[in-house]
Amino acid sequence: MIKTDILIIGAGPTGLFAVFEAGLLQLKCHLIDALPQAGGQCSEIYPKKPIYDIPGFPEVLAGDLVDNLMEQIKAFQPGFTLGERAETIEKQEDGSFIVTTNKGTKHHAPIIAIAGGLGSFEPRKPLLENLTKFEDNGVAYMIKDPEVYRDKKVVIAGGGDSALDWSIFLADVAAEVTLVHRRNEFRGALDSVEKVQQLKNAGKINLVTPAEIVGLRGGDTLTAVEIKKTGEDENIILEVDSFIALFGLSPKLGPIGDWGLEIEKNAIKVDNALDYQTNIPGIYAIGDVNTYPGKLKLILCGFHEATLMCQSAYQKIYPDKKYVMKYTTVGGVTGFDGTKKESPKAVVKAIE
Amino acid sequence: MIKTDILIIGAGPTGLFAVFEAGLLQLKCHLIDALPQAGGQCSEIYPKKPIYDIPGFPEVLAGDLVDNLMEQIKAFQPGFTLGERAETIEKQEDGSFIVTTNKGTKHHAPIIAIAGGLGSFEPRKPLLENLTKFEDNGVAYMIKDPEVYRDKKVVIAGGGDSALDWSIFLADVAAEVTLVHRRNEFRGALDSVEKVQQLKNAGKINLVTPAEIVGLRGGDTLTAVEIKKTGEDENIILEVDSFIALFGLSPKLGPIGDWGLEIEKNAIKVDNALDYQTNIPGIYAIGDVNTYPGKLKLILCGFHEATLMCQSAYQKIYPDKKYVMKYTTVGGVTGFDGTKKESPKAVVKAIE
Ligand SMILES: Cc1cc2nc3c(=O)[nH]c(=O)nc-3n(C[C@H](O)[C@H](O)[C@H](O)COP(=O)(O)OP(=O)(O)OC[C@H]3O[C@@H](n4cnc5c(N)ncnc54)[C@H](O)[C@@H]3O)c2cc1C
Ligand SMILES: Cc1cc2nc3c(=O)[nH]c(=O)nc-3n(C[C@H](O)[C@H](O)[C@H](O)COP(=O)(O)OP(=O)(O)OC[C@H]3O[C@@H](n4cnc5c(N)ncnc54)[C@H](O)[C@@H]3O)c2cc1C
Repeated sequence: MIKTDILIIGAGPTGLFAVFEAGLLQLKCHLIDALPQAGGQCSEIYPKKPIYDIPGFPEVLAGDLVDNLMEQIKAFQPGFTLGERAETIEKQEDGSFIVTTNKGTKHHAPIIAIAGGLGSFEPRKPLLENLTKFEDNGVAYMIKDPEVYRDKKVVIAGGGDSALDWSIFLADVAAEVTLVHRRNEFRGALDSVEKVQQLKNAGKINLVTPAEIVGLRGGDTLTAVEIKKTGEDENIILEVDSFIALFGLSPKLGPIGDWGLEIEKNAIKVDNALDYQTNIPGIYAIGDVNTYPGKLKLILCGFHEATLMCQSAYQKIYPDKKYVMKYTTVGGVTGFDGTKKESPKAVVKAIE
Repeated sequence: MIKTDILIIGAGPTGLFAVFEAGLLQLKCHLIDALPQAGGQCSEIYPKKPIYDIPGFPEVLAGDLVDNLMEQIKAFQPGFTLGERAETIEKQEDGSFIVTTNKGTKHHAPIIAIAGGLGSFEPRKPLLENLTKFEDNGVAYMIKDPEVYRDKKVVIAGGGDSALDWSIFLADVAAEVTLVHRRNEFRGALDSVEKVQQLKNAGKINLVTPAEIVGLRGGDTLTAVEIKKTGEDENIILEVDSFIALFGLSPKLGPIGDWGLEIEKNAIKVDNALDYQTNIPGIYAIGDVNTYPGKLKLILCGFHEATLMCQSAYQKIYPDKKYVMKYTTVGGVTGFDGTKKESPKAVVKAIE
């Protein structure tokens, strides 16, 4: 059982910044995310695109914003359960909660902050016989740890940025990379498309287009895929260790929708006049996942909501303590890792 | 008469960021500030100190944050009335407002956003006979344009960062700089204290300590000051063109307190459940200047409040238009100066 002060569901920008604000209050956080990496939409959908409306950044790449947030919260040592979806919640007698993921990992905390964005990112899957059987036995829809593919034979399917970028990355790791797409045209950043072209010319990526994976073969684990090339009669049988289908991820509110929370327009209603708490005391919803009159699904709004939420959570955890806010500039930042950031003090010094 | 869409009172971080959010909605802004420069508390009180809780910045100097905000809003060409205090407001028949400053400058806008922070920064003044007479005729409490002092004889009084930093700056501009402080010890950044020591040693700053200015002399304009050095019987008469008293600025809600707005704890009550509007329709209050249940006087909260306020202002100005929010990443940023920032588009390109 993982224990923490605030259990955050969703490691997007909102959830990440909540770790910082909680840390200032000396509260510890643990985050669950269905994705293998932190950053939510910013990391999954548009890591290399610029955002222009983060205050103080005339321009920042979404991926860099996430890196900065990770750096900012480092000293507060958040825990992460990645690649798992928060599935069920049980309220305990003492008012605390146990949240269990689809893989059975259990988390215990007095406060839950749902920062689930547009929902848990779920892969679009190809329609293939035996697909479920091979899931986690050769078939994957996202890459958690590329080292798994070292010296393996890999076939990647897809025509977007993920398919391009992982083909490039794995070309140096895997024994063999085959990229299959149903069109000749790929859609992505120009330099990614060009890099794949180079690697193909150099024989480091096998390209099979326009084509589709139409069958999976193997016993307990995958051993080969069947590829149908458009206009050709005979299908290709390709021996592989892994088939990675990168057809995009789409967010689904999913199981959280059944937790007894008031839902409106596929989002969780919260009390924006006070602390972004839901209809269940102790459960907050912050960032894109919540709704209230005038709500804007913007990153900077999630930051504010996370900050007010943490103050309220502190009062719930320590009803008898009075927290007096100190500016970070004045009080510094004391990490759980023993680090202390502090502004240089003014001196009082004679001039003679 | 200055005309604009949103008249912002206070050019602190909140007011500045409001210009950006308004700009995204194609609304023009004009800012009034009592200080000679933008940035509010960040510029006036702690420009060289690090802030640690601006989301995405593990650390940023307050002054750099302001510079970044100025850069971010540049394309939206805000107007500025600096060094003047918003004094009176009159509601027009059509529901718009005219705001007049203490110097008589008039501004006309359908929407007022008060981003006045802790209030208008007002100088602490020395107790001297004839002081008011010489104000703007040789006596100043803040420096709007250092060029005014080129080749002039200047005496600066004060023992903090402002006195140190302006003495250093003017040492290169003025004909003569004398720094008077009632102690030998100065309080400020170590490098500023050391720099003044060097300039004093080099004869570029005259230091008179421990001492006080006790009299002002002149006809219509100031021609000399009388300095009393502790422990000495005879006062020094120093011929000067300017006396700059830098004893700090302290914020006062001031005239805004009499505008008929609901005030609580020296701050303006707003509807935080919707759009940060005050009890007077068309007047909003954002940032440190407002209050509501759970309010935190933090910069990141002002950013959020400014953003929601602008959406509401847009609806008031264009009741018949429906604004559909576009992410900056997707829609780019179109400045009033003809510039356009845009994320590089994905390509669709064949790999052969
Ligand atoms: C193309 C694009 C451009 C954008 N441009 C801008 C912009 O310019 N400015 C701006 O402010 N915003 C922009 N946005 C929106 C911005 O990305 C979101 O507002 C922001 O990501 C919301 O952050 P969040 O942390 O609330 O949620 P998300 O980033 O959506 O993160 C939520 C996370 O929660 C996880 N999750 C949800 N449910 C579960 C569960 N049950 N179990 C485990 N994990 C779960 C998800 O997997 C996800 O990783 C843009 C979005 C897109 C798609
Ligand atoms: C030492 C110190 C350290 C701090 N550290 C942090 C920190 O770490 N993190 C954080 O989030 N916050 C911090 N703060 C607080 C932060 O600076 C404020 O929250 C922020 O400046 C508020 O911004 P604002 O734009 O709302 O108001 P302000 O910055 O106060 O700006 C308001 C402006 O309005 C002007 N004004 C007011 N009334 C009038 C009028 N009638 N006419 C003309 N002009 C007027 C004032 O002159 C002023 O320039 C700190 C503050 C101090 C003093």
